[in-house]
Amino acid sequence: VPLGLAGPLRVRGEHAQGLFYVPMATTEGALVRSYERGMAALTRAGGATARVLVDENRVSPVFPFDDVGEAHAFLLRLGGLADELRARAEATTRHGRLLRVQPRLLGREVIADFCYHTGDAHGMNMIVHATDVACRWLVEQGLAPRYYIFSGYDSEKRAAGNLLLGGKYKTVVAGARLPAALLRALLRVSAAQFLDLWQRTVAGHLQAGALGYNGHYANGLAAIFIACGQDVANLANSAVGITRMEAAGGGDVYVSVTLPALTVATVGGGTGLGTARECLEILGCAGDGGARKLAEIVGAALLAGEISFGAAIASGELAQAHETYGRNRPPEET
Amino acid sequence: VPLGLAGPLRVRGEHAQGLFYVPMATTEGALVRSYERGMAALTRAGGATARVLVDENRVSPVFPFDDVGEAHAFLLRLGGLADELRARAEATTRHGRLLRVQPRLLGREVIADFCYHTGDAHGMNMIVHATDVACRWLVEQGLAPRYYIFSGYDSEKRAAGNLLLGGKYKTVVAGARLPAALLRALLRVSAAQFLDLWQRTVAGHLQAGALGYNGHYANGLAAIFIACGQDVANLANSAVGITRMEAAGGGDVYVSVTLPALTVATVGGGTGLGTARECLEILGCAGDGGARKLAEIVGAALLAGEISFGAAIASGELAQAHETYGRNRPPEET
Amino acid sequence: VPLGLAGPLRVRGEHAQGLFYVPMATTEGALVRSYERGMAALTRAGGATARVLVDENRVSPVFPFDDVGEAHAFLLRLGGLADELRARAEATTRHGRLLRVQPRLLGREVIADFCYHTGDAHGMNMIVHATDVACRWLVEQGLAPRYYIFSGYDSEKRAAGNLLLGGKYKTVVAGARLPAALLRALLRVSAAQFLDLWQRTVAGHLQAGALGYNGHYANGLAAIFIACGQDVANLANSAVGITRMEAAGGGDVYVSVTLPALTVATVGGGTGLGTARECLEILGCAGDGGARKLAEIVGAALLAGEISFGAAIASGELAQAHETYGRNRPPEET
Amino acid sequence: VPLGLAGPLRVRGEHAQGLFYVPMATTEGALVRSYERGMAALTRAGGATARVLVDENRVSPVFPFDDVGEAHAFLLRLGGLADELRARAEATTRHGRLLRVQPRLLGREVIADFCYHTGDAHGMNMIVHATDVACRWLVEQGLAPRYYIFSGYDSEKRAAGNLLLGGKYKTVVAGARLPAALLRALLRVSAAQFLDLWQRTVAGHLQAGALGYNGHYANGLAAIFIACGQDVANLANSAVGITRMEAAGGGDVYVSVTLPALTVATVGGGTGLGTARECLEILGCAGDGGARKLAEIVGAALLAGEISFGAAIASGELAQAHETYGRNRPPEET
Repeated sequence: VPLGLAGPLRVRGEHAQGLFYVPMATTEGALVRSYERGMAALTRAGGATARVLVDENRVSPVFPFDDVGEAHAFLLRLGGLADELRARAEATTRHGRLLRVQPRLLGREVIADFCYHTGDAHGMNMIVHATDVACRWLVEQGLAPRYYIFSGYDSEKRAAGNLLLGGKYKTVVAGARLPAALLRALLRVSAAQFLDLWQRTVAGHLQAGALGYNGHYANGLAAIFIACGQDVANLANSAVGITRMEAAGGGDVYVSVTLPALTVATVGGGTGLGTARECLEILGCAGDGGARKLAEIVGAALLAGEISFGAAIASGELAQAHETYGRNRPPEET
Repeated sequence: VPLGLAGPLRVRGEHAQGLFYVPMATTEGALVRSYERGMAALTRAGGATARVLVDENRVSPVFPFDDVGEAHAFLLRLGGLADELRARAEATTRHGRLLRVQPRLLGREVIADFCYHTGDAHGMNMIVHATDVACRWLVEQGLAPRYYIFSGYDSEKRAAGNLLLGGKYKTVVAGARLPAALLRALLRVSAAQFLDLWQRTVAGHLQAGALGYNGHYANGLAAIFIACGQDVANLANSAVGITRMEAAGGGDVYVSVTLPALTVATVGGGTGLGTARECLEILGCAGDGGARKLAEIVGAALLAGEISFGAAIASGELAQAHETYGRNRPPEET
Repeated sequence: VPLGLAGPLRVRGEHAQGLFYVPMATTEGALVRSYERGMAALTRAGGATARVLVDENRVSPVFPFDDVGEAHAFLLRLGGLADELRARAEATTRHGRLLRVQPRLLGREVIADFCYHTGDAHGMNMIVHATDVACRWLVEQGLAPRYYIFSGYDSEKRAAGNLLLGGKYKTVVAGARLPAALLRALLRVSAAQFLDLWQRTVAGHLQAGALGYNGHYANGLAAIFIACGQDVANLANSAVGITRMEAAGGGDVYVSVTLPALTVATVGGGTGLGTARECLEILGCAGDGGARKLAEIVGAALLAGEISFGAAIASGELAQAHETYGRNRPPEET
Repeated sequence: VPLGLAGPLRVRGEHAQGLFYVPMATTEGALVRSYERGMAALTRAGGATARVLVDENRVSPVFPFDDVGEAHAFLLRLGGLADELRARAEATTRHGRLLRVQPRLLGREVIADFCYHTGDAHGMNMIVHATDVACRWLVEQGLAPRYYIFSGYDSEKRAAGNLLLGGKYKTVVAGARLPAALLRALLRVSAAQFLDLWQRTVAGHLQAGALGYNGHYANGLAAIFIACGQDVANLANSAVGITRMEAAGGGDVYVSVTLPALTVATVGGGTGLGTARECLEILGCAGDGGARKLAEIVGAALLAGEISFGAAIASGELAQAHETYGRNRPPEET
C-alpha cells in the first residue's frame, strides 16, 4: 500500500504541540490530498485544539446465576472486593492498572466492567488475562459459579451505542475556529453553506439510524492505522463519533470532532515493526509516553478530513474531485 | 504486514464452490490460527452454505425545498422520471446500472436513494458521478432548486441501523450445521455451551446498544481486506451483521452469519496492485465476475472466525490462547 | 383525567384543512397551555402544512428452516406466491388489503413483511389474523415447516430504528415557516436562538443514542391518544421521529416534524367509546374516512408542541413555566 | 377507560412481598386476561423475584463555550464544585438530593448530568428547577457564559440507548423459574419452544434496530400507568428494556425482565387524584415510601405479560386469542 505524508498539521494539544506530517497508507491518492487541504485550513487558522479526556480500556465478563436474587447479592458483594480484585489482576501485568469494577444486573446475570489504564499499549490481551485471573479467583472463592470473559458489553472491535460514553480506549476531542476569509479562499465555502450542510446531513444520519455523525472518519483512520502499525480491526469502534459544525460569529465556523473510543498505541503489537516504527517516529510518538500524543494528532487529522470532505460536498466539487485526483483506478470501475 | 493463508475452507455457495485458502494480512499470528480452526470445523462438517442476496450500492442525495408541500410534490414527481434519470446516470458509466430511485420525505427535504448495480467494482466513485449528473439535470429542469450529493443516509463507511436492511454493497448469508462429535473433538465445546454463550452475549450486545451481534467480524475483515486490496475503510459498514448459534437437534449446532453490507470488489481500486492481485488469484476471484464469489468466501471465512472465537470463550481457553499463540508482541504490552 | 381543548390550530393538509381544537387529556395544566402557544404561533403564521406519506401496517412472521440454502429457496419461491397469499389473507377481512410481501433472510430463517392497508382502523388484530391464515396455508402446502406470527421485526409498540423508514402505521410530515416578528412577539426567541438550540440538542441526542430527535412528542401523544380513544401503548412506536429547526432567511425559522410510525384510528378499538367519540367528532374525524385527517392534525399538534417547548428552553423560561402553570401538584413533589 | 384488576400476582421483592391485584385500565379485555395468565404462572411458580437497582433521575444541561480548550477547563473545574452545586440545588427542594454531577465533553460543549434522588415523586419538575438554580449560579460566578437546561442527553420521555445503562428513574429487574409441568399445564408450551421463540425473535429485534428486546411492555405499562395516575408520556422511556428466556435445566425456563428506566411515583402529579389514589391503595403503595414497592410490582407484572405473550406466540394461539377474548371492537375493524 502506497505511503504518503499529509501536512503540515498544527496541533495545540496537551501532549502534541506544533506541526506534524501525518503518515497515511492508501491506494487512493485523492484521499491524502483531501486530508491535506483540511490540514492546511487548520494550520492557517492557528491549529486544532485537542484534548484526551478518557484513557481507559475495559473487559466486561458476565457472571450467570440461578436467580435474580443471587445475582443481586453478588453485585452488592462485588463492591467490597475492589482491593482483592485489583491485587489479583495487577499481579499479572507490569503496566496495567485496574481503576475500578462497575457491575450491572441483566436478568439473573451480573456484567462487570473491569476498567484499566494500560499505558501506551493497546492492552486488550493484557487486560483480558488480568481479568481472567481475577474472575477465576471469584469462582475459586465460591462467590460465583462461573463466568464468560466476554459478555458482549465490551464493544471491542464493534460499533455500539455505549462507545459514545467513553471508557473504551481514548476519548479525544479536537476543534478549531475557521475564519470566514479562510473558508472562502481555501475551502471555497461560506459558513452558511457549512451549517446548512451539517444540519441537513445530521438529519440524514438520524433517519439512517447512524451511531453518532461523521463524514468519513473511516478513511483517515484506515490510512493512519495501516501506516502506523495500529490494529486495523479497531476501526470498528474508533470510527464512532460526532462531528460538529457551528456558527461562530462573523461568518466564521467552529468545527469539532468528538471521538469517544479511539484505539491508538505506541508500544506492542504492530507498532514496532518496519515502517510502522518509522511512521511513529516521524510523529515523535514512538514508544513509551507517545499514545496520548498520537491520539491528539489523530483527532486533529480526522478533524481535517471532516472539514475538507464537508467543503467538497457543500461546494458541489466532490464528484469532480474524484475524477481529477484519482490515480490508481480506471475511471469506469472504482 | 505479514501475510498468511488460512484454510482449507470448504464453501458451498452459488458462486464459490470447493476448497479455498484465504489470504489474511495481520501481525497477530494467533488470529490466523483461530480462523483456521473454525475453517477446519466447517470443512469437516461438509462446508459452509453461502448465498449473496443483494448486490447493490446506493448514493442518497438530499434535495432541500422551501416547504413540506413543495418537497412532497417533488417526491410525487420523481416517480415519473425514472427513465429520464436512468438515461442520464447510465450515460456516465459502462458498468453501472441504475436499478431504481427511492425517495423519502424528511421535513421539507427529499432524500432519494439512487440504487445501482456496479458489477465487480467497488463502484462508489462511479455512482457518485452518475448520480451527480442525474441530479444536475433535475436542477437544470427546474424541478429542484439544489441538492447535496450526500445526505448522510447513504451510510458509506459508517455503522448505521439502515445497513441491516441491505442495499449497501452485498448482503451475504453463510451457515453450517456442526455435529456434536465435531464440536467436542475439534472445538472442545458442547452445543449447550455454544447456546448458553450466545444467549448471554446477545443480551450483552443489547445492553451495549450494539448494531447487530458479532464476536469479531472486524478481525477477519481487516486481515482479508488488507491482503486482497479492498478499501479497508469499508470495514465500518461491512462489520455490521448478525451471528447466530442455534440448537439443531442431537447435540448439533447451527451457526450462521448475516452480513448485510459487505464491501468486496475484484476490479478497480487496490485490487489490481501487487500482492492483492495474487491473493485474489489464489481465491480464483481476480477480475471480472469474481465479486460475488469473493463475497461468499468472505462470508464463510467470517463464519469460521465466529465459530472459533465463540468456542474459545465458551471453553474458557481464550486468555490462554493469546498467551500461547501470540508472537509479535512482548507479553506485557499488547 | 382532566380533558382540555388546545387551539385554535390551523392545518393545511390534504385531508385536514382549517382551524381545529385538539382534545388533550392530562393532569398537567401547563402542558395544554404550552401546546396552545405553539398552535397560536402556527395559526398566525398561516398554518402547518401536513402530508400523509405512507399509510400501511405490517406483520412480519418468521419461517425457520434447517439450512441457509432451504431458507434462500423459500425466499425466492415467495416472490411467485403473491396472488395466492393475497387471496388467503384478504378472505379474512372486509377492510384490509395486502399490498405486498417483502422477505429477507436472517441466517437460516426468512422474515417476511406482510404489508397492508387497513382503512381507518388500527388494524393490528385484523392483519395478524389475515397473515396467520396465509402462513398456515404456506405450511399446509409444504412450502415451510412452521412459522411464528411475530419475528420481532414488526416493531409493534416498540421503539426501533426500522420505524424511521416508514411502513408501520402512518408516516406524517408537518412543517411551517415562522416569521421573525412572530418569533419575537409570541415565543420570545430569535431564529438564531432556535437554531443554536437545535444544533446543540441534536448533538446531545446523538451522544444519548436516541432514535431520531424530538423535544417531547410523548407528552402530546399521550394527551391526545387518551382523549381520542387511541391505543396508548402505540405511543412507543408513534413517539419515534425527527424534529427540525432550520434557518429560512430574514430571521425566519422553518420547523418540521417527521413522524414515520404514527398510530391513529377513527374506527374500532376505543374510538367509539364515550368521550373518545365526542373528541373525534370535535375534530371532524369520527368514523370512516377520518384517519388520515386525524394523522395530519396530530402531526400539526406535535409540531406546535415542539415549537413551544423549544422556545421555552431557548429563552430559559422553562423552569419558571413549570412553577407558574402547574396546578395539580405540590411544588415540592412532582 | 374500563378498569380491571389482574391477579393475584405473587412478588418476592425487597419492598413488595406477597400477593397483589394489579389495576389495569384498557379497552382491550383480552389484555387483562393475558397478563393474568402470566401472573398465575408466576404465582404458582412461587412468585417473581424483583429488585430495584438504581433509583435516580437526572437533568443534563449543556454549557456551550467558544473553544474545546475552554470547555475542557470548565469540565475539570466542575469536579471541585460539587459541594457548592449541591447546596444551591438542594436549597430549592425538601425532597430532592443531588447525588453527583457527571460532565462530558461534546466538541466545545460540556454536558453535565445532575443526578438526583427524588424520593417517591416523579421529580422531573423538582430537579429541573433545582438544576436551573445551580446552573444560574455557575453563570453568575462567571464560570460559564450560558447554558440550556436540556441538552437532549436526558432522554426524558424518549427512547434512547443511554437509558439501558440506568440513571433515568428506576432500574428494576424481575425474574422467575417456571417448572416444566407448569409450562405444559398452564401455558401449553415447552421450555424448548420458549427458547426457540426467544432466540429467533431476538434476532428479529436486532435486524429491526430495536432498543433492547421485549414482547409488549407498552401494553402493560399503558394500562397500569393510566390506572395508577402515572405520567403516561413516560412510557417512551419506561418501555425500553430486555426480556430474557433461558433454559434452567430439567425442562424449566428462567424468564426475566430488566427495566432500566421505569418511571413510577406514588406522590405528586396524578397519583393523588380520584381512582388513581384508590388503585395505589389497592397495591398498598399510596403516598410516601411506596415508589420502590410499586416499581417491583410493575416489574413483576410486565414479566407476567412477557410470559403470557411469549407462550401465545410460541403455541400459535395468538391470533385465536384475539378473536376469542376481544370484546370492545367489531371483528373487522380493530
